[in-house]
Amino acid sequence: MSDVVLDWTRRARTGLPEAILCEGKSDEQIARILDLAAERGERLLLTRLPRDRFASLPAGLQACLDYEPVSRTAMTGAAPALQDLGVAVVTAGSSDRPVAEEARRTLAAEGVDALMIGDVGVAGLWRLLERIPELSERSVIVAVAGMEGALFSVLPGLVPGLVVAVPTSVGYGVGAGGRAALSTALASCAPGLVVVNIDNGYGAACAALKVVRPRGSGSATEVA
Amino acid sequence: MSDVVLDWTRRARTGLPEAILCEGKSDEQIARILDLAAERGERLLLTRLPRDRFASLPAGLQACLDYEPVSRTAMTGAAPALQDLGVAVVTAGSSDRPVAEEARRTLAAEGVDALMIGDVGVAGLWRLLERIPELSERSVIVAVAGMEGALFSVLPGLVPGLVVAVPTSVGYGVGAGGRAALSTALASCAPGLVVVNIDNGYGAACAALKVVRPRGSGSATEVA
Amino acid sequence: MSDVVLDWTRRARTGLPEAILCEGKSDEQIARILDLAAERGERLLLTRLPRDRFASLPAGLQACLDYEPVSRTAMTGAAPALQDLGVAVVTAGSSDRPVAEEARRTLAAEGVDALMIGDVGVAGLWRLLERIPELSERSVIVAVAGMEGALFSVLPGLVPGLVVAVPTSVGYGVGAGGRAALSTALASCAPGLVVVNIDNGYGAACAALKVVRPRGSGSATEVA
Amino acid sequence: MSDVVLDWTRRARTGLPEAILCEGKSDEQIARILDLAAERGERLLLTRLPRDRFASLPAGLQACLDYEPVSRTAMTGAAPALQDLGVAVVTAGSSDRPVAEEARRTLAAEGVDALMIGDVGVAGLWRLLERIPELSERSVIVAVAGMEGALFSVLPGLVPGLVVAVPTSVGYGVGAGGRAALSTALASCAPGLVVVNIDNGYGAACAALKVVRPRGSGSATEVA
Amino acid sequence: MSDVVLDWTRRARTGLPEAILCEGKSDEQIARILDLAAERGERLLLTRLPRDRFASLPAGLQACLDYEPVSRTAMTGAAPALQDLGVAVVTAGSSDRPVAEEARRTLAAEGVDALMIGDVGVAGLWRLLERIPELSERSVIVAVAGMEGALFSVLPGLVPGLVVAVPTSVGYGVGAGGRAALSTALASCAPGLVVVNIDNGYGAACAALKVVRPRGSGSATEVA
Amino acid sequence: MSDVVLDWTRRARTGLPEAILCEGKSDEQIARILDLAAERGERLLLTRLPRDRFASLPAGLQACLDYEPVSRTAMTGAAPALQDLGVAVVTAGSSDRPVAEEARRTLAAEGVDALMIGDVGVAGLWRLLERIPELSERSVIVAVAGMEGALFSVLPGLVPGLVVAVPTSVGYGVGAGGRAALSTALASCAPGLVVVNIDNGYGAACAALKVVRPRGSGSATEVA
Amino acid sequence: MSDVVLDWTRRARTGLPEAILCEGKSDEQIARILDLAAERGERLLLTRLPRDRFASLPAGLQACLDYEPVSRTAMTGAAPALQDLGVAVVTAGSSDRPVAEEARRTLAAEGVDALMIGDVGVAGLWRLLERIPELSERSVIVAVAGMEGALFSVLPGLVPGLVVAVPTSVGYGVGAGGRAALSTALASCAPGLVVVNIDNGYGAACAALKVVRPRGSGSATEVA
Amino acid sequence: MSDVVLDWTRRARTGLPEAILCEGKSDEQIARILDLAAERGERLLLTRLPRDRFASLPAGLQACLDYEPVSRTAMTGAAPALQDLGVAVVTAGSSDRPVAEEARRTLAAEGVDALMIGDVGVAGLWRLLERIPELSERSVIVAVAGMEGALFSVLPGLVPGLVVAVPTSVGYGVGAGGRAALSTALASCAPGLVVVNIDNGYGAACAALKVVRPRGSGSATEVA
Repeated sequence: MSDVVLDWTRRARTGLPEAILCEGKSDEQIARILDLAAERGERLLLTRLPRDRFASLPAGLQACLDYEPVSRTAMTGAAPALQDLGVAVVTAGSSDRPVAEEARRTLAAEGVDALMIGDVGVAGLWRLLERIPELSERSVIVAVAGMEGALFSVLPGLVPGLVVAVPTSVGYGVGAGGRAALSTALASCAPGLVVVNIDNGYGAACAALKVVRPRGSGSATEVA
Repeated sequence: MSDVVLDWTRRARTGLPEAILCEGKSDEQIARILDLAAERGERLLLTRLPRDRFASLPAGLQACLDYEPVSRTAMTGAAPALQDLGVAVVTAGSSDRPVAEEARRTLAAEGVDALMIGDVGVAGLWRLLERIPELSERSVIVAVAGMEGALFSVLPGLVPGLVVAVPTSVGYGVGAGGRAALSTALASCAPGLVVVNIDNGYGAACAALKVVRPRGSGSATEVA
Repeated sequence: MSDVVLDWTRRARTGLPEAILCEGKSDEQIARILDLAAERGERLLLTRLPRDRFASLPAGLQACLDYEPVSRTAMTGAAPALQDLGVAVVTAGSSDRPVAEEARRTLAAEGVDALMIGDVGVAGLWRLLERIPELSERSVIVAVAGMEGALFSVLPGLVPGLVVAVPTSVGYGVGAGGRAALSTALASCAPGLVVVNIDNGYGAACAALKVVRPRGSGSATEVA
Repeated sequence: MSDVVLDWTRRARTGLPEAILCEGKSDEQIARILDLAAERGERLLLTRLPRDRFASLPAGLQACLDYEPVSRTAMTGAAPALQDLGVAVVTAGSSDRPVAEEARRTLAAEGVDALMIGDVGVAGLWRLLERIPELSERSVIVAVAGMEGALFSVLPGLVPGLVVAVPTSVGYGVGAGGRAALSTALASCAPGLVVVNIDNGYGAACAALKVVRPRGSGSATEVA
Repeated sequence: MSDVVLDWTRRARTGLPEAILCEGKSDEQIARILDLAAERGERLLLTRLPRDRFASLPAGLQACLDYEPVSRTAMTGAAPALQDLGVAVVTAGSSDRPVAEEARRTLAAEGVDALMIGDVGVAGLWRLLERIPELSERSVIVAVAGMEGALFSVLPGLVPGLVVAVPTSVGYGVGAGGRAALSTALASCAPGLVVVNIDNGYGAACAALKVVRPRGSGSATEVA
Repeated sequence: MSDVVLDWTRRARTGLPEAILCEGKSDEQIARILDLAAERGERLLLTRLPRDRFASLPAGLQACLDYEPVSRTAMTGAAPALQDLGVAVVTAGSSDRPVAEEARRTLAAEGVDALMIGDVGVAGLWRLLERIPELSERSVIVAVAGMEGALFSVLPGLVPGLVVAVPTSVGYGVGAGGRAALSTALASCAPGLVVVNIDNGYGAACAALKVVRPRGSGSATEVA
Repeated sequence: MSDVVLDWTRRARTGLPEAILCEGKSDEQIARILDLAAERGERLLLTRLPRDRFASLPAGLQACLDYEPVSRTAMTGAAPALQDLGVAVVTAGSSDRPVAEEARRTLAAEGVDALMIGDVGVAGLWRLLERIPELSERSVIVAVAGMEGALFSVLPGLVPGLVVAVPTSVGYGVGAGGRAALSTALASCAPGLVVVNIDNGYGAACAALKVVRPRGSGSATEVA
Repeated sequence: MSDVVLDWTRRARTGLPEAILCEGKSDEQIARILDLAAERGERLLLTRLPRDRFASLPAGLQACLDYEPVSRTAMTGAAPALQDLGVAVVTAGSSDRPVAEEARRTLAAEGVDALMIGDVGVAGLWRLLERIPELSERSVIVAVAGMEGALFSVLPGLVPGLVVAVPTSVGYGVGAGGRAALSTALASCAPGLVVVNIDNGYGAACAALKVVRPRGSGSATEVA
């Protein structure tokens, strides 16, 4: 069964590259994907690849990957130069950092640098308020929060840029698995707020890319 | 079947009076309860009695009730004089007002006046921040909010008093029925926050009474 | 109780105007809000105002509102001239039209014209495919779908613009209330897709405005 | 307690053989079942038998089983010759392969060969569209997908055969455990689509067998 | 906004006709759809059209529809002659009849007659067992049940044909809305059972059509 | 379609009579059922028949029914003499009375008298404690409670008889629809407690009948 | 903190002995409980004590316990002689056996022998039907089933005794954790059926004891 | 990324200290937090730090922490002298003790001693009733219960103090994860009851502190 068919034309169609969610794939499948990418000289982003799983890959594969453990991501190929296009990534608490790093790495894989601001949850509101001037300069803010996710509701009322909420699975009891943070993000009456799946730092970064890059610019660089 | 047995010793045991949730009771049952209370000369609070239902009660019953339509509550007997014991009731939006009024009326039925502050939801954060000095003087703040209920998470970090969250069924989609607001209140990492059932303004007021009145004071007045 | 406090500085802070969700508010509250807006000469958007409720407002209030029944929205003040900034609104089925119209009206209230394309659900995929050339020219596509919402997953893979998914409460059984469409939108692995609450055409339009308007442009017109 | 009573007449009644779900059974119970089958000379299919559990069975039992690790299935007895009766099995992503292989093995245990097509999820729609001519020749297509399962909604509108959706537990956040894919399959308005339980490749294959084999043919071959 | 785009090529692609779910559509939209169908001389099936809604349509529209109130369906055009292709429709209780009738009418609209058997729920098992000989002759059995839906699990073990389960929203408490019946159908370990959405008699009938008609036969008659 | 097949042998098999859940059945179906029962001279119990629906039945049908509005039940035939076999029915609050009455009527239809005790919810625990001596004499206690249903957990620890919990749909917020009361009943660690569906007074009474009547006694009287 | 207070008068009040749920308790707590029981010469039943946890207890404690690994139960003191009082325990599948054994051991601890019948799920209905004569002689049948639990609905219609349903956590997908089996048991319209919590074999056995033993008989033996 | 920003002014604003939820934080993050606290000479409470995780911290960090394993908490700095301000902590069962200890330690970290009463669940009601005189002297009672949580509903009706319910994740089946106990606490009609998140002993203690300490007293000691 030909169980791997990569979507090589995605960038031409959508301006975004193919990424590989490693969770649920066997080592054989990951190896095959990396081979296919190498054959075509394509750059790939691998997500949800924990440190111990990376360490168990064949040394040959490890060698050709740029791995970063907090974000649990790996990249093939040379990293592009970074450019500031007005994206910020903020977290409510330090436990949300891995998801924020996944967003940062996805942006970096496309040559976009992000302003990173951590631990500005609303329980101590001054921490957020003192960063509002900086955040008001940004076109897109990826907000990463678990627990009850009240940050998602406060932030869009304070800044002019689009806020992309990434609920995280940080929490317990009613907040377990990120459900409370997700429902806050969706039920919020704050306009200018959009939402992606729980822990989906990659998806939030892709949305940010679509906002800050002129249409077609991505494909021009990569596919030609 | 003797289907009405009022709990006349509740105040002596707990300091709180008996209240009657009218929803789900027949008109016959409500009439019997009022008769029993009249016989003993007890004061009663009736909750969840909408205006059209009140209007359909026998004129004799209507005459002996002090009815207030926004809160959908009625009281029997003479209202006690009001005293300010440091309780505030705040709402996130104007749609939350009926639940806030149910809390206010429950407090008033026990002789406690409350500071009422409306429409301070976090989408426009300045509206809340400019009331913080006043709210910081309060021992208990009943916070009433629907939608995503982010107010529940912001407020306890700004004031020294206990915050009692009352999620309301105001909202739609993921927020329908008050579930999102409830999960925000419970999952919040803000210390000093406690929660009651959706739309339970009566219960929040009772909790406030237990905080601001010395133990036994309530029973002294009523049972003697 | 001062239960209406409008957020007059929202536009200056965020570039978006204040809007009034009529559901859950009393007629008295709506009237008071309109009076406050008239006093300050502010333009307001009213949402979730069904035709029969509009018809029951005092004639004086009706006269000063520009009401549109399919979207269930009303506007005060003179409508701005429309400009095409690259926004499209598409629906999966004709039952999704009211929510799409709420998005269109919200955009129009801010002077933004939208390309409207209806009934392109994936059950008959050709209907969508033949509109892809047009849709590929758009910066933001508001996609409105109920039932299982598969459109949310197909569309982002075919166009370079950001796709904002609005699940609708159209559906029955497992799809009742929009829950299936919502979970499709969130769980989709299609990058470039973000989500708002069920039936929240207003919120999707606000997100689109934040993408297509240079920061600050909105406030320039309105607040000066 | 006689805790194993095999259903030896199932094939005569329904045309389908008995299969053993190993999950939740003790090794002693599995051994007893295999003994009973050997006594009667019946062929059995064992499902949900992971590689490490198979390896922990007594060597004697292992020897009489035809084990396949990706599908986590084992068969007793001689495999029948394979025949193409118009069944296809497709997956949306490579992580869905184990469930697809369970379907393939169930079909093979009954002598039915299946066309296997992998990785045709709708995020890169061209991958599916280029296989439609082949798939249009099939009477039954078992579609296997996790995440949001949009494939279930797109495929039935493109082919004349019956589509049997098998949601898989591949996914995270809102898609965790296969719930989002399941609700897509059920809420889809695409006619010609039916659904089985999450990860139930065996059940989908049984349904396909009931469609492509004339009634009674199964029992004729096996039970005589 | 062109909000109605009918899928005229559906029959050619899939062998099934276009059907219109009336719930959620405005009268204007239904009228427009019927006009479009009349222009092209296409036959349409309308579902979920309750008697009072049908009665409120313009007399001209009513006149050109073949309406049946129990199934809440209407058809345009001349009904085809009926042929028995081995389909049965059974219900667990008499309350399930409207959904069973929707299935029967969908089959009839395509010229397929169905054996109808009512009220054979498993609480009185003899009622089902005495119909098994008849049911064993059928290729496809559409089983319609609410409450706990145990019929879905018992029937596939007694007959050789494919069983298509249609859970109904008949029930209360834990069974309200059809959720218990749906979970029974999905969680059943009975092989040869597939499931459609709650109350989706139309979808079950379409699946049956795909099983009993040779591929392409439907399109030959209709589209030529 | 023969959509009514009554289960006339139920009493012989199980000792319990056939009952008709009127909710979801058309007036035509109810009339047909009553005709069938009259033909065979069988006694029937009709449940969930609200007062206004009863009033809308043909006068001829009304005349032959013994209707009781609080329980929403009707009986055909002569009522049997009542005998005390050690069954009690208790409610937590007066709003639970309709469900308790459904249980009482079901018992009465089989000639069993029940001790009825109302309004003994645990909020005022003395009301329950003062009835424990009486309740300790009973073999089966049907306990009927909504809201949080704590009565289900307290009662079995105080009496030797079997406690059958009937959660009711009385409640709001988290308790809406009876879900909280149901989960209390199921999750309780009190031994000697069993549960039936929400609002299922009929089912609880049937369980009580199976406990207090020697096997076969019911059928002897009725079927001979 | 005195964190263990055993309920020594439970038998006198309710006829049932104290049992200890080991899950969630520390080894220290279990040891303290056993010491307290030894001091008073009371017999205790320990439940949910898996084999490896039992093996990790101090040898002294192990020695004074009668441990049985399938049921994961242990007993202190001498086992009483067994007597047949008309109780049966049946399982739908062999995976349900541990829960059935917990019920059997609970009954045995109280001197009641049970007829054990395994693997009579409804997928192969003949297996159940051939045991009906035996089961019809029983006063109480504890029915143990996972997956979709259709056995719960079929059995009460075939026997005169009370059926106590114990849903088990055997199952996957929609059936995971026992939720589907539980909802079948509760939503079933089969009269004479009552339900306990998922996997609660102990609770079902206690209910059976309350039915088959005359009130007070249990306490007579034990407490005197 | 500066991912740790402690909220040093929390005590001044709210009277409560900063606490660190260790779950979800990396060892590096915990070390950094302790360093920051040491630099400023602040006292910190660490929660959800299981024994094995504490043991894996660098010896230097371990040395400066006052660790208590049952509550899974650690404190930095010198413990304050304890004072009885009228707080009690009660548990329903011994499995609830870890959460109760988290509450006790949080109170102790602020110099408040609590009366600890264990194992007073309502299944053996006498255990609770004999402690009511003591509990009636308390201003605040933190009630800790899992399973069905009926204690939450019984206790507030027996004492004059405020009851803060902490549902625990002790339970199985319907009670798994603490959901049943939580819904009991919220749906209870007992006035004077408030609720915090599942297993949130820390939060309940903070609420108690806000009730028993005069406003500002906490900050006076700590911040000066």
